[in-house]
Amino acid sequence: MTAGFVDKSACTHRTIFPGVEIATAAGEQMMLSMVDLKPGAEVAPHSHPHEQVGTVLEGRAKFFLGDEERVLGPGDMYIIPGGMTHRVIAMEEGCRALDVFHPVREDYL
Amino acid sequence: MTAGFVDKSACTHRTIFPGVEIATAAGEQMMLSMVDLKPGAEVAPHSHPHEQVGTVLEGRAKFFLGDEERVLGPGDMYIIPGGMTHRVIAMEEGCRALDVFHPVREDYL
Repeated sequence: MTAGFVDKSACTHRTIFPGVEIATAAGEQMMLSMVDLKPGAEVAPHSHPHEQVGTVLEGRAKFFLGDEERVLGPGDMYIIPGGMTHRVIAMEEGCRALDVFHPVREDYL
Repeated sequence: MTAGFVDKSACTHRTIFPGVEIATAAGEQMMLSMVDLKPGAEVAPHSHPHEQVGTVLEGRAKFFLGDEERVLGPGDMYIIPGGMTHRVIAMEEGCRALDVFHPVREDYL
């Protein structure tokens, strides 16, 4: 468990879909996941029991949340309840987003 | 409780310290708080039982977490355990950060 400043070198790095890389760090009850999507990269439709919230930091991506879709850019926020199917496709400039999960995703440790 | 895309007009807006404005939206277990600090604005030392995680979106600020201090910029992340005293001072260009709390901060609803 991390407390205080998060050193990027101490993060766990994973490629979760082609062109989609995450760097994660876990607290006690929440997990941070910095997501980098290459242009056109897709997070395929999926769901999980964890609640997920986040914002876009750079670039833009089309988010599909349940039955809604919207192109999000820097500062746009989202709240994905546990069990809601979601999908993300990066626009042509790519996208960086921060996701936060509760509880901690043990599969991303 | 918000689910899906967060409309900024639906956020709760508060000035929590001079020059420090937040826009919040709550899920079931977590609360998003977009924080805008004017140049030099300070979040005075404080603590709360909620765990707090986040990242800087724009600009820079000096973060004091427990006994450590560091200037953070875009993409830098932090994890503040419940009960840890923290303080933030925006650098000369101001700073925008995203905080996430668990559980939901009832005082920010």
